[in-house]
Amino acid sequence: MNATIVTVGDEILIGQVVDTNSAWLGSQLVSLGIDVAEIRSISDKEEPILEAIGTAFQQSALVFMTGGLGPTKDDITKKAIAKYFNASMVFHEPTFEVIKAMFIRFNRTMSESHMEQCYMPDNAVILPNKMGTAPGMLFHQGEKMLFSMPGVPFEMKAIFEDNIKEILIQKTGNTAFIHHRTLMTVGQGETALADKIQYIVDTFPPQISMAYLPSLGSVRLRITGKSTSPSIKEEVEHYASLVEKEVDYYVYGYDNETLEAAVKRMIDQKKWTLATAESCTGGYLAHRLTSIPGSSSYFQGSIVSYSNTVKQNLLGVKAETLATFGAVSEETVLEMAEGCKNRLHVDIAISISGIAGPDGGSPEKPVGTVWFAIAYPGENTKAYKITASKDRLKNIEYAANVIMGKLLRKLAAKEISYRLS
Amino acid sequence: MNATIVTVGDEILIGQVVDTNSAWLGSQLVSLGIDVAEIRSISDKEEPILEAIGTAFQQSALVFMTGGLGPTKDDITKKAIAKYFNASMVFHEPTFEVIKAMFIRFNRTMSESHMEQCYMPDNAVILPNKMGTAPGMLFHQGEKMLFSMPGVPFEMKAIFEDNIKEILIQKTGNTAFIHHRTLMTVGQGETALADKIQYIVDTFPPQISMAYLPSLGSVRLRITGKSTSPSIKEEVEHYASLVEKEVDYYVYGYDNETLEAAVKRMIDQKKWTLATAESCTGGYLAHRLTSIPGSSSYFQGSIVSYSNTVKQNLLGVKAETLATFGAVSEETVLEMAEGCKNRLHVDIAISISGIAGPDGGSPEKPVGTVWFAIAYPGENTKAYKITASKDRLKNIEYAANVIMGKLLRKLAAKEISYRLS
Repeated sequence: MNATIVTVGDEILIGQVVDTNSAWLGSQLVSLGIDVAEIRSISDKEEPILEAIGTAFQQSALVFMTGGLGPTKDDITKKAIAKYFNASMVFHEPTFEVIKAMFIRFNRTMSESHMEQCYMPDNAVILPNKMGTAPGMLFHQGEKMLFSMPGVPFEMKAIFEDNIKEILIQKTGNTAFIHHRTLMTVGQGETALADKIQYIVDTFPPQISMAYLPSLGSVRLRITGKSTSPSIKEEVEHYASLVEKEVDYYVYGYDNETLEAAVKRMIDQKKWTLATAESCTGGYLAHRLTSIPGSSSYFQGSIVSYSNTVKQNLLGVKAETLATFGAVSEETVLEMAEGCKNRLHVDIAISISGIAGPDGGSPEKPVGTVWFAIAYPGENTKAYKITASKDRLKNIEYAANVIMGKLLRKLAAKEISYRLS
Repeated sequence: MNATIVTVGDEILIGQVVDTNSAWLGSQLVSLGIDVAEIRSISDKEEPILEAIGTAFQQSALVFMTGGLGPTKDDITKKAIAKYFNASMVFHEPTFEVIKAMFIRFNRTMSESHMEQCYMPDNAVILPNKMGTAPGMLFHQGEKMLFSMPGVPFEMKAIFEDNIKEILIQKTGNTAFIHHRTLMTVGQGETALADKIQYIVDTFPPQISMAYLPSLGSVRLRITGKSTSPSIKEEVEHYASLVEKEVDYYVYGYDNETLEAAVKRMIDQKKWTLATAESCTGGYLAHRLTSIPGSSSYFQGSIVSYSNTVKQNLLGVKAETLATFGAVSEETVLEMAEGCKNRLHVDIAISISGIAGPDGGSPEKPVGTVWFAIAYPGENTKAYKITASKDRLKNIEYAANVIMGKLLRKLAAKEISYRLS
C-alpha cells in the first residue's frame, strides 16, 4: 500500500517555513509498512488543491494533507476538500464544545472566525485535536482514504497518534509483518560504526535491512525486517544482537530512547543527584536534562555562569585561574565542576566552557573548542576536550550530546558489559 | 514566470532527511520574482523522475531538481535526466580535473564510481561545483530550462549562487516585482489579530496579500505585494504600516527577527545586563537568549533552581514562602527574581516557576500553570501568570516566548501606548 503526502501553504513554497511535517509523517508511515510514493507542497488555492487530491488518488490508496485548517481567511483547504468530496458544511457540535472550553480556560471570547471552524464537511469522519481548535478529517473514496490535518506540527502529530495510526494499522492489516530494533549509540561516527559492523550487515538475508541514522554526536542503527511471517521478529533480534555485540561500547539504549532519558534512567537506578555548571552551552544541557518528565528526581539545578564574574562569585573559580589559563581551559572547568558539586551538594557535577562561535576563537583555541569536566562519586574530577565545528547552535548541541554520552558510559561502567535484554 | 522544484531521494520520502533545500530555493526564487508553483519530493527511480520532469514542464518555465547526483550506486537521477533530454554521456575533462584535485588534496584514491561522475550529458551546460565533486547541469527545452543540482545543501547553494542566479536574473528581466514585509508579533493569537486587522486587509488591492504564520505564542504577519511596477514596494509598506498601527502593542520586530535577537538588540541599546532564575523552564530561556552570537554583551548567567534547596541556598527564597505558597506562586517568583537580581548584580532579572507537566498538577494549579516575575530598573518587581497547555516541551517553549514578549514590551515602553480597543 502506498501513500502521497500533500502539504498546503504558500509559506512553504516561498521558503518561510521548512516542511518538517512530511518527514515526520514519512517516517511514521514507513514504520507501519506503508510506502511513500511522493511528497508535494502546493499553494493554498482551490485549483491546485483539487488537482493534487485527484492526482494523489490516482497513484495512492492513502493521501495525507497537512496545513490550511486554521481559522483565518487565507486558509481555504477545508472548503476545497469539501468541494472535491461534494460535501455540505454542517455545524459540528463537538468541535464547538472543544473550542468553547478552550476559550473559557483562557478567558477569551470566541470570534466569528472561530465559529467558522465549527462547520465541518458532512461526509467527513472528524478526528479530534486535543492540541488545538481545528480537528482533522477523514474522507473515503471507495477503498481509498484522505486524511486532512492542521499544519501546526504538534497538532498534526497529536491527531495522527490519537486517531489515524490505529486506522492505518487496521487498514494495512496482516499483509506484512514489520519489526524494527534500533540501537541508540553515541560517541562514534556513522562511517566508523559501519566499518566495524559491515561484515555482519553483509550476512543479512534480503528481508532484513540496516539503516544508519546519524545526528550530532550520535547515530541510531535501525535494523528492520519485513516478511509475511511473524518469525521476522526473532530474526531481527538475532541480527541486532550480533550488531550490538560489536559496538557495545557505544550503545546506550534502544528504540529512540534519548540521551537525556537514558541519563535519568541510569542515575535514578543509583539514586544519585546531578547539577551542571554551564558557560558556552548557556543552560542548554540543563534544558535537555529537564525536558524529561520527572527529572526533578535527580536534577537539582544549574549555574549558568556566562560571565567570569558569575564563575567566580557563584562557582568559586579563582581569578588567577581565569587570568592564567582563560575561561576555556582544563583548569577552569575542573574548578567549575568542583564548585558546582560543593555548592549544590550533588553526587555528580558537570561543567562546560567553550567557544561556541561564530566569534571569539584564536589560533590556540579555535571556535568549537569546548572543555568539560565531570565530578563523579569515588573518582578524581576529570576534564575532557571536544573539538566541534564553526556553527554556534550545532556546537552547543554537539557538546551536550558528547557530554551525556560520556556520562552514560561512566554510569554504565562500560568496562563491564552492559546489556538490557 | 513560475517554477517547480523537484527533490529526488528516498531518504526524504521515508523521513530520514528533512528537505531544507526546497525552502532555501523557494525563498531565493521568490526574491527574484519567480513564483513557486509546487515542490515535489519523489523517489530516485527512473520512472518518477521522467514523469516529474514532464509534468513540471507542463506547468512551469523553470524546473529545479536537487539530489541524486552523488557517487553511490542508488543515485540514478543524472541518467534519467539524460534520457529525458535524449543525451549521450561524454567524458567531461573539467569535472575530472576538479575531482582529481580534490582527491589529491585529501590524499585519497579515485574509485570507479568517482570516474563515473566525470561523464556528463552532451547537451547540458555544466555548472561548476566548488564545494563538491558533482557539478550542476542546465538543460534547455525551447524557452524552458531545467537545472539539476546535487542534494547536499551547501553544494546546491554554491552552484545556485555561483551559476544559476545570474541566468535567472537575465531570464526574468523586469517582468515582476515582489516585495514582502513581515511583522513579528508576540502575545496574541492568530484569530485575535485577524479580528483586529481584518477591516484593513479587506481594503487590500488584489496585488497585495496577507498571511498569518503562527507559532507558539507568536504570529508572523506577512504582507506580500506583486506587480509589474517597482512602486509595489511603497504600496506594501503603506499597508504594512496600517496593519502595524492597529496591532502595534504586539509587534516586536520585522522580517524574521527572533524574540531572542530582539531582546539582545533592545537591551544592548540601553547597555543593561540580564540574568534568569529558572525552575520549570530548566535553563531553556537562558539557552534561547545565549543562542544569539555575542549575547555575553548583556547576559550574565542563570540560576536554574530546579530543587527547592537550590531556590533557598542560591536565590535566597525563604523556606516559609515555599511552605506557605508553594514553589509555583507569585510570592516565590518575586523572591526568586529579587534574589537573582541581587546575587548576580544585574539590571534585569527574570524568574520562572511552573508546572511543566505531564504530572505535578492539582485542581488549584493545573499542569501548564506558570508564574514569572521581572525585576526591572525603576520599577517594583512584578509577577505574572501564564496558563499553558498539557504538553511539557510546548509549555516550556510557550513560557519562554511569552516572557520574552513581555520583556520586549517593557523595553519598548509599549505598556504606556497600549490602546485597549
